Amino acid sequence: MGLNQRINEDLCGLPVGERNSITDVPGIRIGHKTLRGHGRMTGVTAMVPGSQIFAEKFPAAAYVSNGFGKSMGLIQIQEMGYLETPIVLSNTFAEGACYEALVRYSLERNPTIGVETGTVNPVVLECNDGEMNTIRDLAVSQEDVFSAIADATPECVEGDVGAGTGMVCFGMKGGIGTSSRVLNIDGRAGTIGVLVLSNFGDQQCFRLAGQVVHDDLSGANQHEMRHGIPSDIDIPGVDKGSIVAVLATDLPMDARQLHRLAKRVTVGIARTGGYVGNGSGEIVVAFSTSNRIHHRMDAAVETIERLHEDAMDVCFRAIAAASEEAIISSLMHAHTRIGRSGIIHSLRDVLNTSANLPAGK
Amino acid sequence: MGLNQRINEDLCGLPVGERNSITDVPGIRIGHKTLRGHGRMTGVTAMVPGSQIFAEKFPAAAYVSNGFGKSMGLIQIQEMGYLETPIVLSNTFAEGACYEALVRYSLERNPTIGVETGTVNPVVLECNDGEMNTIRDLAVSQEDVFSAIADATPECVEGDVGAGTGMVCFGMKGGIGTSSRVLNIDGRAGTIGVLVLSNFGDQQCFRLAGQVVHDDLSGANQHEMRHGIPSDIDIPGVDKGSIVAVLATDLPMDARQLHRLAKRVTVGIARTGGYVGNGSGEIVVAFSTSNRIHHRMDAAVETIERLHEDAMDVCFRAIAAASEEAIISSLMHAHTRIGRSGIIHSLRDVLNTSANLPAGK
Amino acid sequence: MGLNQRINEDLCGLPVGERNSITDVPGIRIGHKTLRGHGRMTGVTAMVPGSQIFAEKFPAAAYVSNGFGKSMGLIQIQEMGYLETPIVLSNTFAEGACYEALVRYSLERNPTIGVETGTVNPVVLECNDGEMNTIRDLAVSQEDVFSAIADATPECVEGDVGAGTGMVCFGMKGGIGTSSRVLNIDGRAGTIGVLVLSNFGDQQCFRLAGQVVHDDLSGANQHEMRHGIPSDIDIPGVDKGSIVAVLATDLPMDARQLHRLAKRVTVGIARTGGYVGNGSGEIVVAFSTSNRIHHRMDAAVETIERLHEDAMDVCFRAIAAASEEAIISSLMHAHTRIGRSGIIHSLRDVLNTSANLPAGK
Amino acid sequence: MGLNQRINEDLCGLPVGERNSITDVPGIRIGHKTLRGHGRMTGVTAMVPGSQIFAEKFPAAAYVSNGFGKSMGLIQIQEMGYLETPIVLSNTFAEGACYEALVRYSLERNPTIGVETGTVNPVVLECNDGEMNTIRDLAVSQEDVFSAIADATPECVEGDVGAGTGMVCFGMKGGIGTSSRVLNIDGRAGTIGVLVLSNFGDQQCFRLAGQVVHDDLSGANQHEMRHGIPSDIDIPGVDKGSIVAVLATDLPMDARQLHRLAKRVTVGIARTGGYVGNGSGEIVVAFSTSNRIHHRMDAAVETIERLHEDAMDVCFRAIAAASEEAIISSLMHAHTRIGRSGIIHSLRDVLNTSANLPAGK
Repeated sequence: MGLNQRINEDLCGLPVGERNSITDVPGIRIGHKTLRGHGRMTGVTAMVPGSQIFAEKFPAAAYVSNGFGKSMGLIQIQEMGYLETPIVLSNTFAEGACYEALVRYSLERNPTIGVETGTVNPVVLECNDGEMNTIRDLAVSQEDVFSAIADATPECVEGDVGAGTGMVCFGMKGGIGTSSRVLNIDGRAGTIGVLVLSNFGDQQCFRLAGQVVHDDLSGANQHEMRHGIPSDIDIPGVDKGSIVAVLATDLPMDARQLHRLAKRVTVGIARTGGYVGNGSGEIVVAFSTSNRIHHRMDAAVETIERLHEDAMDVCFRAIAAASEEAIISSLMHAHTRIGRSGIIHSLRDVLNTSANLPAGK
Repeated sequence: MGLNQRINEDLCGLPVGERNSITDVPGIRIGHKTLRGHGRMTGVTAMVPGSQIFAEKFPAAAYVSNGFGKSMGLIQIQEMGYLETPIVLSNTFAEGACYEALVRYSLERNPTIGVETGTVNPVVLECNDGEMNTIRDLAVSQEDVFSAIADATPECVEGDVGAGTGMVCFGMKGGIGTSSRVLNIDGRAGTIGVLVLSNFGDQQCFRLAGQVVHDDLSGANQHEMRHGIPSDIDIPGVDKGSIVAVLATDLPMDARQLHRLAKRVTVGIARTGGYVGNGSGEIVVAFSTSNRIHHRMDAAVETIERLHEDAMDVCFRAIAAASEEAIISSLMHAHTRIGRSGIIHSLRDVLNTSANLPAGK
Repeated sequence: MGLNQRINEDLCGLPVGERNSITDVPGIRIGHKTLRGHGRMTGVTAMVPGSQIFAEKFPAAAYVSNGFGKSMGLIQIQEMGYLETPIVLSNTFAEGACYEALVRYSLERNPTIGVETGTVNPVVLECNDGEMNTIRDLAVSQEDVFSAIADATPECVEGDVGAGTGMVCFGMKGGIGTSSRVLNIDGRAGTIGVLVLSNFGDQQCFRLAGQVVHDDLSGANQHEMRHGIPSDIDIPGVDKGSIVAVLATDLPMDARQLHRLAKRVTVGIARTGGYVGNGSGEIVVAFSTSNRIHHRMDAAVETIERLHEDAMDVCFRAIAAASEEAIISSLMHAHTRIGRSGIIHSLRDVLNTSANLPAGK
Repeated sequence: MGLNQRINEDLCGLPVGERNSITDVPGIRIGHKTLRGHGRMTGVTAMVPGSQIFAEKFPAAAYVSNGFGKSMGLIQIQEMGYLETPIVLSNTFAEGACYEALVRYSLERNPTIGVETGTVNPVVLECNDGEMNTIRDLAVSQEDVFSAIADATPECVEGDVGAGTGMVCFGMKGGIGTSSRVLNIDGRAGTIGVLVLSNFGDQQCFRLAGQVVHDDLSGANQHEMRHGIPSDIDIPGVDKGSIVAVLATDLPMDARQLHRLAKRVTVGIARTGGYVGNGSGEIVVAFSTSNRIHHRMDAAVETIERLHEDAMDVCFRAIAAASEEAIISSLMHAHTRIGRSGIIHSLRDVLNTSANLPAGK
């Protein structure tokens, strides 16, 4: 029985979606643009929620577990409770290009922005891939963002691809991972999907299906990241890097509830061995496709659906499981790579044998 | 090798304090008042940080992981960043008595309060022990609070005692648990201690040292709590109840840093199987004994010490480990009890054999 | 033309409700219990939103402008977004009695609490009336709370009554004040009402209808409050004390929107001369009577109404005006009184002539 | 006696600094780049706090009064409590260019970023100048940001300059404004300065020195902004646009205290007639130059100075006054201009005579 199945059955008891991906939520597509060569090991990942997202917004929330991050667009989501652009993920210094690309993307599709109506709130999430990528080169362009958006499909490729190209997680090759759970709440079916960009963790603390496996790993990859803060002081045990996540569901939720959902992604992070490191940008953006918020106010009073709060626990449990699995999946799909400061092994290569590993996915 | 040792060595690499208790932080004392009989299965636990806490306050922070709780005093801690009373823990409906007892305790020791100076901010944390205790009786009196304070010693008794008397955790007998870690940061020794009142969790999700052990438990205690929200709708997997925690350290921290520390207690909760349930009051109060904030302003400018932010990771890691251990310790020290709605087994009895269990502590 | 009318017409352009009171929102009743004599100058005010508030909760939010306060129940409102008890206001040290009284009030009306269902979240707001009242005596009893609740009517008495009995505002006699505005949004009529307990302000900064009137006041009442922090250091300009407020509306709002509404009460406070003093507990609880949240989950998906966000500005404007007016009204309705530390003049007496004052209300 | 003097003496009693500008705080310089012509009416303003800000950071805080804004860098300031780049202000769609320019600025001065150490957190504040400026053209370039930084001097030019070029405030020409107050706290002199970018307000609500002057204005400039949300529904009274502010002081403050200071800017906004409109990005970044936070951890324990909390009230009062004055000053220094959708009059021209206006500044 594979890891996926075990996690799902043991820890959650809820079935995964057809693709075990955030794209199991109807309408969600994911695209990547991967940049390699000439010192570049970076890229862009785009979550595209349909083309009318500005006119017909999704209820949304942003949760900041640890704010050592430069993600954009969170302040307005927190205030207004909606999402009105695709979500773009990339490296820290690429955010200017990503922001401007999302502005242009929105202007092109909405001729009234800046003329008759106001502005638009681009959402950009980031991790620092400077361990592998020559991040000082600012290699990501607006064209790369448009490419990632154009590439979007319901099949979410995972591992060291797109924004995940240069990421490092628990001292191993990290990147893009995703998972989903299918729920049936009082006769209403729904899906919750989580997508992560994994770039965090202290290798000594890594837990695979709940087990610390550091001793098993130690021969292979005594990795010490180099982009921490330089210091003459010996501080043991640094949880370096960041993790950002997108949570999507077609269950009816309002913004306050989505904030609660977003927070539960941190449960999955903790279970893989994360402890919300000092220098971590741990940020989750959550949205629901079930209600639409009309940009143009056609009526002053709007009617929305949402779950009764007592139906939330099963959602929280699904999110904890899907988040843990998405992180492990990002590691399982990545490959051993040589980056700016040396080789970073994949989890598969570190374990040195696929015998112990799940066959699935 | 016992569980305690394993957790410490495997997951954290940091030694525990002499008592493996929050009272390893110098000056911290814990006292209990336990009430049993006549339907009562409840009590009070008091954390007493010395007798001058109003005049010489501790920097402090309060973190609300999930706010389904009635804990008192958090708003002022969040604004002002200090603690000025003992912290009292009890059941939800006892808070009025606890609040008033802390007012009287402070008035007695500080004759200027309400005369020349302002008021005082009592801090009371709570969980709902209505599963075992006839909570509608409001059995806890102000005298019980004074007793718990008077009982305070550097030896922290754990398990189903004081505020923990009637608590239920992962469907088993919960209560008071504590653990500590000793750190050496750049030549400066320090201790971080965590005390929990455990009353949360979905038995199916319980993880012992990272492992889901539900199948092992299932024969013993197919427990279904009765104080959830009644409903005709079948909602699987409810994480019922709450957990509150106190974190203390003698490392130099300011209020902003203490808020960061408090948040990391949730990592330990997640690792035992919690997923921050809908109806959970998950609240942490953290304080440092290293700096004192003088009630009376003798100088407009004050000088304080604090850790450089880059020294925080090892603290976070220690907190994750101590919090996980404190929860497990609360379960390990509790006894099988018969409460209002039936028998609640202890973890030891559920596992049905001590062979698999740690000898220590 | 009176002050009330001027404020309304000049600053807002929206008509006031029939009573110019929070009780213009249908179903809201206010009751007081006033305690005077034997050093007591204190009391209780209760906002009673009907008798089924636990079973059929109101969407609600709590906003903390400055957290130097001990108000209870805010944490759960912030998390769950609903109100499930009356709101009781009193002095700081009376909160234990108020909390316990609300527990007993809820238990009596809801026999399942603590038996089949969970607990209840009492909401208690407070200011420190120690300037006038011998607050150390803890004179308020649970019976006083029951009296205030029993006294509740749609006619809200203002001034130095109930919780306002001993309050001091801008160095003058403060207390209970209220105001309302009637809106018509896209054909839907609605009322927003604000009730304040005013106990804040630096007399030098007081603004009447936008004008600093300190010079006019200076002959009468060079008041220096005595319950500040004692200090040998001369610090000019202290904004002492607190203000708490309740905002009610029958317009359809969800909890996120109500949080936004609650924040706008601070605009009215600033316009009277407040600057959110260091020692101020400035706290607002807001609720809407338009949607009901069922304690018992009869269906997992619920439908609610709310305003489109673009219809919020007129609400914000109404709240700013009603809040400013409620504060002024609390001063206008109070009487000169002799308290623990001397005489506190009313605004009417300070201005020394009613010629300049509004005739209305 | 001029308005400045009156505000200062009446409302605050504290003297202004030598320049009555944020640049009265030693070391702070302000530069502008103004873009006009070809439909452009926009620009960039830079606050430059010395050249070593990355290596030696300032304690800082960010306060979001209303989050309808796209400002960047706030999340990390809120978590870590420090500022490590200049602060750049511009129009909403220019933020991508501003972010990337600040990345390049920081990389150039700090060769270890992205090599041996981590990343950098650019801080960019914005308002929407689309009322006057053809914002869809994305006219601001990275070169413009470098120009604004290079232009920085201790003389802060105010009005319709730099980022303020195309801003509209209370239906009149807004832009850059600044003011300062000098405090003496227990023998320690200090300055607090506020800089605003004013682009908010409902003309009907504008208050000049506390007085609603709408009737006086009404003949001149019945302005109705065109970049609100289009709607068939008639909603009266819209507070359109945003205001962002920077607060600087050389008084010793930690990040928690700076958050409290930042919040008091909203008092000044309310006093000019703002009510925190629905579509307003009201955001304040505050920092203190008194303590330095070393990027490189040379010692794990650091010592910092800060004010005793009881000395904060006079600071709050100063901020309320300086913020009100900075907004009025932005209006007083702006000129009548013709923008994309017509003429926007200056406050001076609207009042139609300088007789009633302050001579000073």
